[in-house]
Amino acid sequence: MKTVGIIGASGYSGEILVELLAGHPKAKLAVVASRTHAGKRVDSILSRLSGLTGDLEFTKANPKALAKEEVDIWFLALPHGVAAEYALPLVEAGRLVIDLSADFRLNSDETYTTYYGQKHPVAEWLQKVPYVLPEFTQPGWKKADLIACPGCYPTSILLPLLPLVREKLLTGEGIIVNALSGVSGAGKKESVFYSFCERTDSVLAYGLGQHRHLSEIEEQLGMAARQAVQVQFTPHLVPMMRGIASTIVAPFEGAVDEIYASWEKAYGKKQGIRLLPSGTAPDTRDVLGRNRADFSGYVDSRTGNLIITSAIDNLMKGASGQAVQIMNLRMGWPEFAGLV
Amino acid sequence: MKTVGIIGASGYSGEILVELLAGHPKAKLAVVASRTHAGKRVDSILSRLSGLTGDLEFTKANPKALAKEEVDIWFLALPHGVAAEYALPLVEAGRLVIDLSADFRLNSDETYTTYYGQKHPVAEWLQKVPYVLPEFTQPGWKKADLIACPGCYPTSILLPLLPLVREKLLTGEGIIVNALSGVSGAGKKESVFYSFCERTDSVLAYGLGQHRHLSEIEEQLGMAARQAVQVQFTPHLVPMMRGIASTIVAPFEGAVDEIYASWEKAYGKKQGIRLLPSGTAPDTRDVLGRNRADFSGYVDSRTGNLIITSAIDNLMKGASGQAVQIMNLRMGWPEFAGLV
Amino acid sequence: MKTVGIIGASGYSGEILVELLAGHPKAKLAVVASRTHAGKRVDSILSRLSGLTGDLEFTKANPKALAKEEVDIWFLALPHGVAAEYALPLVEAGRLVIDLSADFRLNSDETYTTYYGQKHPVAEWLQKVPYVLPEFTQPGWKKADLIACPGCYPTSILLPLLPLVREKLLTGEGIIVNALSGVSGAGKKESVFYSFCERTDSVLAYGLGQHRHLSEIEEQLGMAARQAVQVQFTPHLVPMMRGIASTIVAPFEGAVDEIYASWEKAYGKKQGIRLLPSGTAPDTRDVLGRNRADFSGYVDSRTGNLIITSAIDNLMKGASGQAVQIMNLRMGWPEFAGLV
Amino acid sequence: MKTVGIIGASGYSGEILVELLAGHPKAKLAVVASRTHAGKRVDSILSRLSGLTGDLEFTKANPKALAKEEVDIWFLALPHGVAAEYALPLVEAGRLVIDLSADFRLNSDETYTTYYGQKHPVAEWLQKVPYVLPEFTQPGWKKADLIACPGCYPTSILLPLLPLVREKLLTGEGIIVNALSGVSGAGKKESVFYSFCERTDSVLAYGLGQHRHLSEIEEQLGMAARQAVQVQFTPHLVPMMRGIASTIVAPFEGAVDEIYASWEKAYGKKQGIRLLPSGTAPDTRDVLGRNRADFSGYVDSRTGNLIITSAIDNLMKGASGQAVQIMNLRMGWPEFAGLV
Repeated sequence: MKTVGIIGASGYSGEILVELLAGHPKAKLAVVASRTHAGKRVDSILSRLSGLTGDLEFTKANPKALAKEEVDIWFLALPHGVAAEYALPLVEAGRLVIDLSADFRLNSDETYTTYYGQKHPVAEWLQKVPYVLPEFTQPGWKKADLIACPGCYPTSILLPLLPLVREKLLTGEGIIVNALSGVSGAGKKESVFYSFCERTDSVLAYGLGQHRHLSEIEEQLGMAARQAVQVQFTPHLVPMMRGIASTIVAPFEGAVDEIYASWEKAYGKKQGIRLLPSGTAPDTRDVLGRNRADFSGYVDSRTGNLIITSAIDNLMKGASGQAVQIMNLRMGWPEFAGLV
Repeated sequence: MKTVGIIGASGYSGEILVELLAGHPKAKLAVVASRTHAGKRVDSILSRLSGLTGDLEFTKANPKALAKEEVDIWFLALPHGVAAEYALPLVEAGRLVIDLSADFRLNSDETYTTYYGQKHPVAEWLQKVPYVLPEFTQPGWKKADLIACPGCYPTSILLPLLPLVREKLLTGEGIIVNALSGVSGAGKKESVFYSFCERTDSVLAYGLGQHRHLSEIEEQLGMAARQAVQVQFTPHLVPMMRGIASTIVAPFEGAVDEIYASWEKAYGKKQGIRLLPSGTAPDTRDVLGRNRADFSGYVDSRTGNLIITSAIDNLMKGASGQAVQIMNLRMGWPEFAGLV
Repeated sequence: MKTVGIIGASGYSGEILVELLAGHPKAKLAVVASRTHAGKRVDSILSRLSGLTGDLEFTKANPKALAKEEVDIWFLALPHGVAAEYALPLVEAGRLVIDLSADFRLNSDETYTTYYGQKHPVAEWLQKVPYVLPEFTQPGWKKADLIACPGCYPTSILLPLLPLVREKLLTGEGIIVNALSGVSGAGKKESVFYSFCERTDSVLAYGLGQHRHLSEIEEQLGMAARQAVQVQFTPHLVPMMRGIASTIVAPFEGAVDEIYASWEKAYGKKQGIRLLPSGTAPDTRDVLGRNRADFSGYVDSRTGNLIITSAIDNLMKGASGQAVQIMNLRMGWPEFAGLV
Repeated sequence: MKTVGIIGASGYSGEILVELLAGHPKAKLAVVASRTHAGKRVDSILSRLSGLTGDLEFTKANPKALAKEEVDIWFLALPHGVAAEYALPLVEAGRLVIDLSADFRLNSDETYTTYYGQKHPVAEWLQKVPYVLPEFTQPGWKKADLIACPGCYPTSILLPLLPLVREKLLTGEGIIVNALSGVSGAGKKESVFYSFCERTDSVLAYGLGQHRHLSEIEEQLGMAARQAVQVQFTPHLVPMMRGIASTIVAPFEGAVDEIYASWEKAYGKKQGIRLLPSGTAPDTRDVLGRNRADFSGYVDSRTGNLIITSAIDNLMKGASGQAVQIMNLRMGWPEFAGLV
C-alpha cells in the first residue's frame, strides 16, 4: 500500500482522480491539496464523491509543505505553468510525481515557448521527463520520478497514429485531424461562453491552426517517424460533457489489413485499446467512464485515403484514468488496478 | 397570392415547411398531404404549430388526386424514391414543383444508381431538372417547373467551395470534409439508435466514404470546376437537434484575401450568406431558425492548407428555408419573403 | 408605424425582443441601449440576429439621454432595481414604457421589500402601474403609460389558476405548484453553477419556499379571489435552454367540466391560450418559439385533487412575446402582430 | 465466491447490472440470458462494457434450462408479467432470485390487477415475497429466496417518507409528490416519442393520477403508517439520461429538527443515504453512478408544509445498484461490495 496525494482536485479531471484513487486497491489517498478550497471537506466541493473520501479535507497547496507530507506518489492536476512549480520540490524530496498538465509534455523548449506563449521555467527538465502513452512508450520510462501524462486530444490521435508512422505505413504527410470534444475538456469555467445556454445546441470549431495540443501531437509523431511530421488539427466543441471523437484522414495506398496488422503488433491484447472492425466507427458513449481508446481504420480506395476514427473519454483515458494506469505500471501493479 | 401545398409534412423539414408557408405573405397554404395522417388536423400531429394552420387537415397523398387540387406550387418533403412518383403528375398538370428529396439532385443516372442502390424511375428527367443553390446557381433555373433542392450537408459545403473551385483558387484535389450534424438530419425515426438515451453524450462518425450526399457534392463541384473533383467526406452525429457544422480542409498556397475576394464577388450582399472574419469559426447556435449559411476561411501558412468552417440550420438553409427561398425567387417575390 | 426602443438587450429575453421587434409590421426598432455594449453593432453581440438589425448599434444606456430619443415605445429588459431608474424619466417624457423587470409587478411595497430585500425606490408608483396578463387583465390597463409584464413562472401558473380562483372553483387553499424551468430563466450568467458541465444531466429544486415570483403569484391570485391566497411554490432547474412546465395540485371536489367551462368562459378563442384535453399534459417542446400557454386539467377523483399541467416558452409567453403582445393591444394593433 | 446470472440484460438497468456484477469482488458473473441476443457476445451488444465480460455470450432465456445452470443467485431484469415466469422455476430449483421487475412488489393481488391491467399469474406468492428497501426494511427478509426490488420512483420517495409516516410525524394525508425522471426510466425504446429529437428541449408530465409506481408507494407507506395513505403522484420526463429528482410536499406543523431526528434514527450512518442540510436541495448530478439517495427537508412555516427534495440515479439506487446491495446483505457480504 502506497500513499498518494493530488494537488489541484477541484476541476473535472481532479474529481475523477480523487474518485479513482479513493477506490484504488493498492493506493491510499492521503492528501488532496487545493489552491482555493483548503480547509473544506473534499466531499463538500466534490459532492458526487460523498462517502468515498471520508473526512478528508483539502490541504493548502504549498509546494514546500507538501514536499514534507508522507506521500509516496503525487498527481498534479494543475494548469500548465503552475505544475512545474510543484513538481520539482516534490521530485527533489524523493517523491514520484505524475503530472497531468502540459508542463513536461514537450521535449523542445522552443516549441513550448511558441505554443504556450511563455518561457519554460525549467527548460532543462524538458528532455529528461518522459511523455508516457502506456500502450506505446518504450518501457525505459518506468524508472522516472517525474512523468508527463499526454493531453486528451493527443491520446485519441496518437494511439492509432504512432505505430503507423513508426512503421512508415503513413509517410507523415497530409495528415488531417478533426476532433470533437465534450465541454469538460475546457475545465470548470466561470464564463458565459461555457454556460449551458450557450453550449447547448451549439457546435463550433476553435483554435484554428494553433491549438496547444498540436505541439505535442507533432512532436510525438515526429519522434516515432524519425522525421518531422505536420498535422492539420482542428478541434471542435460539441454539446456533451465528456468524450472526444477524432477523425483522422491520411493518404494511404495500401490495404486496410496492413493497418490492422500494425495495430495488432503494437497493441496486441492491451486492455486500454479496442480495435473496431473496418467500416464501423467508435461512439464516445461506449468509452464513457472507461480507460480505453476505441478506434478503427477504413481505406477509401476511391480517394486513396485512410480514415481513422477514434474515441476516448477525455477525463479517463484522456486524463485521470491514464494517469492512474501510468502509476500502476510504474509501481509494478496490475495495469488496470482501480480502473475499468 | 398563390396557393401552395406540401406532400409529406410529418417529418422535421415538413413541419418547418408548414410553419414557413403558413406565415408566408404571398402564399396561402391550401393542402397538406400525408401518407400516414390523412383526415387528422395538421396541428394534432404538428402540435407546436397549433393556431397557425387553422382547421387544415391532412389530405390523402394520392398523386393523381393531388394533381387536380387547385394548388399552384407543390413542395415535396418525401423520401427519395417516393418523390419522383409525385413530381411528374404534378408537373404534367402544370404545377410548379419544388422537391426537397434527393430524387432529382443528380445529373448522372449512373451516380444515382451507385449511391442510392436502385435504378432511377425516370432517369431521362435527371438532366432537365435544375439543382438550385439560390445564391450560386445561374438564373436560367427560374423557368423550371420542377426544381431540386440541395441536401443539408451539401448546402453547408458547396456554398463556400463552389466559387473557389470555379475560379480555380482550389484545384479540386485533396479536399477533406468533416461535417457534424444534429440528429434531426436523420428524420423522425422509430429506432433505438436514434433514441434520446443513445444519442445523448454520444458523438460518432458514420457512412465512411459512402454517404449519399457525397454524390451531390462531387457532381456540383465537378460542374463548377469543369473537371472531376473528389472529396473525402466524413459525416458525424452530434447530440443536438438542429444544425450542421462543416470543416473543410484543402491545399491552398495563396493568401486568405483571395478566398474572401472570391466569396465577396460570388455572394456580395446576399442575405443568405454571412462571411465571418478569418480566424473565427461559425457556431451552429447562431444560425438556428435562420435561412443563412455562416462561413469563414483561414489559411494555415505552416501547413499550406485552407480551412473553411461553415454552419447552417439543417432544417432551414439546409432544407425548408432554402425551399421557400427558391419559391420566392422563382415567383419573382422578395427573396426572403416569409423567411428570416 | 411607431418607433420602439429596448434598454438592456444583451440577455436572452432582450435578444428575443430585438428579434421580434426587428420583424414587427407596425413598429420600427430605432434604439437598442445597453449598459455594457454601447458603440458595438447589435449583431456583433446578438450574432444569431445578423441581417435583422442592419447597421444598428447599441446606444449608451443613459436614462436622461434616452428620454430625448424619438422613440414612442420603450421596452425595459433590465434587472429589477435598475428598471425603475429608467422607467420614470421615460414616462415623464411622455413615452409608453413596457417593463419586463419585476420592479412594478407588485402592488404592495411591503411584499416588495420582503421578497427583494430592499426598499422600492418609488413605492408610490406600485399601485398605479398595471400588471398585465393580456388574456386575463381587465381592459382598463390599456390607457397606462407604464405597464408591468408578468414573470415567466407566474405566467405559466396564473393563466390557468386565475379564472378558477375568481369563480371560487378553487378555494385558494392547499395550492401546491412545482415548476420546471430551462436554464435561460436564470439569464446569461458567468458562473460555474450555470456552466454546461454542471447543468447537463442535472435536475434540482431551488429557492425553497421563497422564490421571488411567489410574491407575484400570491398577490395576483389574492386579487382575483378577493382574499389572501397562499401557494407552496417549488421551482426546479432542468437541462434545457428554454421552456417552463408547471404542475399545479389543488383540492377540488367537482367535475373537470367545470374547470374547462371556466377556462372557456375566460379565454374563449384567445390565440395565446391552448386548452389540451383532460388527461393529457402539455410538452414544453410544443410551445418553443410560440407566444402561447398550453394547459390542461385533470381531476383525480380518488384523491380529490385537480391537477393542472401548463407549459410556456419562458422567453416568449413568459417574457418578450408577451411584452410585444401587450404593446400590440395597448396600441390597438392586431394582438399577434409580429408574433406566432 | 458465488456464481451469479442475469436474465434480461439488454436494457439500461441490465447493462448496469452486468457492469456491477462483472466487477464484484464476491460474485462471478457466469450467465447472462437474453430473449433477443442469445448466441452473441455480451460486449457486442453492451459495447461500453467491452473488456469486462471476457468472452461471455448471451444464453437463451429458457426458464427450465436456466434452472439447471450452476448459478447461485439470479437477477431478473425483465418486464413485469415476464419476470414471474422465470422466478418460480429458479426458486424451486433452490436458487436465490432477486427480481428487479414489478411482479412481486405488491402485496395486494387486487392492486396489482388495477394498476397492471391483468391478473397476477401467481397471486398466492405476492404476500410471501419481501419488498426490500435495504436501509428501511426489517431484517426478516434476509432469509427469503425471492426478493422484490423497489421501483425507481418509489425508492426516491419512500426512503425519506417511510420513517416519517411510521413515526406519525406525517399523518399520511395531503402528500403531494412531483417527480422528474431521466429518459432511461422508460427503458430502451424503439419509438418516435423517445427519440432524441422529441425528448431534447422537452419537459412534460405523464401518467396523471395513475402511474404504476403509485401502487407500490401507497402500499409501502400504508404498511409503515399502519393505515391507508394516499399520495398525489405526478411523474415528469426531463431531458437527461439518468437521474430522478422527487419533490414531496406534506402538511407538517412541527420543527424541521424532528424530521432530521427521525431520519437520523432510521438511517444513522447508512452509506446509501446522504442527508443534506435543510434549505438545500440535492442535485441528480451528485448521485450519478452512486448507489445513494440524497435528500433534505425544509419546513415552510408560512404555509405549514414540509418540503422534501430527493435525488437518486434511477439505474443505480433506483434499480441495479440497489439490487446488488440487496444481494450483498442477503449473503452477509459487506453492504457496498462492488458498489460506490
